[in-house]
Amino acid sequence: MLDKNSTIPLYSQLMDILINEIENDMRENEKMLSEREICNKYAVSRTTVRQTFKELEREGYIRIEHGKGAFVASKKYNQNLYGFYSFTEEMKKLGKEPSSRVIKFEIITANNDLVKKMKLEKEDLVYKFTRLRLADDEAMLIETTYVPYDMFPGITRDDLNKTSLYDIFRDRFNTVIEYAEEVFIPVLTNEDEAERFNIAVGSPSLKISRFAYNSSEKIIEYTVSIARGDKFRYGVKLLRK
Amino acid sequence: MLDKNSTIPLYSQLMDILINEIENDMRENEKMLSEREICNKYAVSRTTVRQTFKELEREGYIRIEHGKGAFVASKKYNQNLYGFYSFTEEMKKLGKEPSSRVIKFEIITANNDLVKKMKLEKEDLVYKFTRLRLADDEAMLIETTYVPYDMFPGITRDDLNKTSLYDIFRDRFNTVIEYAEEVFIPVLTNEDEAERFNIAVGSPSLKISRFAYNSSEKIIEYTVSIARGDKFRYGVKLLRK
Repeated sequence: MLDKNSTIPLYSQLMDILINEIENDMRENEKMLSEREICNKYAVSRTTVRQTFKELEREGYIRIEHGKGAFVASKKYNQNLYGFYSFTEEMKKLGKEPSSRVIKFEIITANNDLVKKMKLEKEDLVYKFTRLRLADDEAMLIETTYVPYDMFPGITRDDLNKTSLYDIFRDRFNTVIEYAEEVFIPVLTNEDEAERFNIAVGSPSLKISRFAYNSSEKIIEYTVSIARGDKFRYGVKLLRK
Repeated sequence: MLDKNSTIPLYSQLMDILINEIENDMRENEKMLSEREICNKYAVSRTTVRQTFKELEREGYIRIEHGKGAFVASKKYNQNLYGFYSFTEEMKKLGKEPSSRVIKFEIITANNDLVKKMKLEKEDLVYKFTRLRLADDEAMLIETTYVPYDMFPGITRDDLNKTSLYDIFRDRFNTVIEYAEEVFIPVLTNEDEAERFNIAVGSPSLKISRFAYNSSEKIIEYTVSIARGDKFRYGVKLLRK
């Protein structure tokens, strides 16, 4: 099946064969044949197979787990950062049922750090709540959110279990988000997060910090999310300045 | 120093004190006092210190290494995704000296996967090269790039050691990038990458896939980069649609 006289390198030919199998005959997280089995099956060297695996990993087709072998990569939701998005709306678009589970809910006095970040007055009250965000009952994100209390009085834990924060803003306070700033940093999932997500501790995930502004440039939401790396990919379009 | 009668929770007051120390008296990667030492110093419970550490980690001030303790987080370059950017230009703006080291350079016939991704013709030749990108001689990114050969004949390994790809496009081929699409996925650094970066295997990093287009909507560059998670943060602005 491999053509040793082709100008396409052997690893690159082998890549095409394996991509074809992955896309047509395999399920996500299914184990690939071992390096040795592939050597034998296609009569290629171990070096060639190793290079093929490295390329398949780089291209996102497989993930290599040290000492365990290679596995077909999980399918990821594509989240485009072309404009403001909400988890609830994005999951609905994909035909998934979004839901939230409030893990913790408090109203606290802001410390200096929060006063500075959210441009609050000293001693302002803020809601602080942590939500697990699910799609078809599968945990996807853990979000810790701060919202200024005085602008949005009377929000309860129960409200957030039933409704999205942005629906509450819009329907109860006639407020929409004008724009948001987000910062992305790759992190390893800690023990808490791994347990909530039911994945291994130390899995790659993305930490996303969001500051959302209303039409008078006030910060009405500050959220730090942990997004599962096996579930999300984020896309941007970059125009020439 | 902590006010047990304040409406600001104790962990939150302690957070402010530690942030102040981190910002004014500590260096990046410096070890924090242990949980126990902080308990004693501020007369607070272990639970409070633990919560403080968790919050400091979430806010990006420290990183917690399992079994080793907490460390002041590294300072990160802020890369805004507000428009097309290049490593060379961004590092110059920060007063850093950018350089590249070509690790591998080949001209190969594209396989099916590459033909599909880059919208090439079957059997088209492409450059494939891997570069380590440095700022002030510190390794920051590893990039594997594919460029269609026929559109840009005569590029050598040596050219890429000396000049940025975008300078070659512009100065030698009168070509500029009109726009690019990028996709971000968090990954763990593998052995090769960790060695090049001189960081631990399994450190969090970001995989960035870029497709860059010329003014006739042709893909002139496809790059997969691994960006050190301890060195970069990526920012976007999201406008209401």
